[in-house]
Amino acid sequence: MRIAIVGAGALGLYYGAVLQRSGNDVYFLLRSDYEAITTRGLTVHSVNGDFHLQAVKGFRSPTEIGIVDLVLVGLKTFANQFFSELITPLIGETTRILTLQNGLGNEEQLAALFGEDKILGGVAYLCSNRGKPGVVHHLSEGRILLGEYLPASGTITEDIASCFRAAGVECRVVSDLKRARWEKLVWNIPFNGLCALTLKPVDALLCFDLTRCLVRDIMEEVIAAANAQVLVKNIPLSLADKMVDSSQKMGQYKPSMLIDRLERRPLELDAIFGVPLRLAAKRNVPMPHVQQIFALLQLVEKD
Amino acid sequence: MRIAIVGAGALGLYYGAVLQRSGNDVYFLLRSDYEAITTRGLTVHSVNGDFHLQAVKGFRSPTEIGIVDLVLVGLKTFANQFFSELITPLIGETTRILTLQNGLGNEEQLAALFGEDKILGGVAYLCSNRGKPGVVHHLSEGRILLGEYLPASGTITEDIASCFRAAGVECRVVSDLKRARWEKLVWNIPFNGLCALTLKPVDALLCFDLTRCLVRDIMEEVIAAANAQVLVKNIPLSLADKMVDSSQKMGQYKPSMLIDRLERRPLELDAIFGVPLRLAAKRNVPMPHVQQIFALLQLVEKD
Repeated sequence: MRIAIVGAGALGLYYGAVLQRSGNDVYFLLRSDYEAITTRGLTVHSVNGDFHLQAVKGFRSPTEIGIVDLVLVGLKTFANQFFSELITPLIGETTRILTLQNGLGNEEQLAALFGEDKILGGVAYLCSNRGKPGVVHHLSEGRILLGEYLPASGTITEDIASCFRAAGVECRVVSDLKRARWEKLVWNIPFNGLCALTLKPVDALLCFDLTRCLVRDIMEEVIAAANAQVLVKNIPLSLADKMVDSSQKMGQYKPSMLIDRLERRPLELDAIFGVPLRLAAKRNVPMPHVQQIFALLQLVEKD
Repeated sequence: MRIAIVGAGALGLYYGAVLQRSGNDVYFLLRSDYEAITTRGLTVHSVNGDFHLQAVKGFRSPTEIGIVDLVLVGLKTFANQFFSELITPLIGETTRILTLQNGLGNEEQLAALFGEDKILGGVAYLCSNRGKPGVVHHLSEGRILLGEYLPASGTITEDIASCFRAAGVECRVVSDLKRARWEKLVWNIPFNGLCALTLKPVDALLCFDLTRCLVRDIMEEVIAAANAQVLVKNIPLSLADKMVDSSQKMGQYKPSMLIDRLERRPLELDAIFGVPLRLAAKRNVPMPHVQQIFALLQLVEKD
């Protein structure tokens, strides 16, 4: 499959690398890593085994890439304003666009630009960080829940899922993408929010009783807001306990929003907090903890 | 009046200085400022006019001071464990103890040690910061609401109030000290909490719509918790607007808890958050914003 990676950060580089390794024709749209990757290739330090790709197709502009079968979008959501400029040159009759971005609202923005039937969403459970230029660290997990924005035939979606599986990525097609997105928010909202606000890694929050309880309270707020959105099947409260438990294994993992703040990049506040809060408000579900985190992160982002 | 200042920080030094200037016999219990004050005196830079006291009675131990008429307690509440050691040598038959400390629970701790009838509480609306050793900056306000822990005769309380007034301090005797304490918390909880958490001064919170609204929401939580405590007269919701408005004038003022965090001192978390949260929980009043701030500040205090 001919695949373009738009937004080649820790997530885009990792999935692009494993897709290329398994035989796909992968094109990376690059900025800061361009020199390093086009001269020295791409190195993945992975819990599943390190590997290096010497010949990597890196480009500075999407027009150099041209039309592909699949656009994999890994951009930070604060760069969504560049969707049209970065993606339009890649789109042909049968191209599909898969966003693996964080939060809510990304499929909607892509659909408005390129048509609902072209859009797929993927919820990636991946712990990865960037290393020095040309290096990505895959720390744990990596599975993807894949869904169509406009549930339709599904054969192409199954092909894309197979393509990920052939690359060694656990990939499941889900019928309710919206539910999968909210499930991910049950993790993303407390951990990205509180870690970015306190500048602490995941384990610091979980080692201390009061903040571990706070994480769980926030998860309950998110689950209540999610279940008010008319999902095919409600998210059970037990997901909160499951996520708190499984997060214990992450150790000193720094969620992406903490890294963004430490590196003085913009934060993905609207996708992870703003859109969910507006959807909850529409259904009259109060989210006092989440509202407070959102307000305080907007304040500290001004620094 | 023979007055001992126990806890000579920004508040203790300021009130001690104006009380000495107006003719009282003031004894300062000092630690870090001892050398500077006993050799060079005490300087007050005040919005009401600067002044310098050359001869200041500074002591390292309360036994050197002996029995006084009034003990003015300005200790940080995390030092309340030293009440007995620091105050006992100062107490005679008719001595009164006035705590001007932050938050809730201080009068109770003093009463348990020295007897309910000896205890007065004062709620100080004072913006002051310490300068270099021997220097205190009085930025604005200064008025005190004075009340008896165990409402009784009141003549001595009126004498103490007159003593403050003679020193140029606006001082009003209130019949409901509990209400006055909770009113102050309506300011202290959001501003000390959010400024300490975000490392921002007062105006940063008020200049930004979302955090100004958050401050107001937190004030409403505190007012609801206060009014559930059976006060003589309920605190009106309009106090929140009044306090937000009057705080606009404070500019880049750093509340004491922000300064404590910046200077890596312990934070007054139990008096300002812990005790009010426990009292609210007893009356089944939820305080989700306050609970979250309390949990996060305990986490960051571990640094």
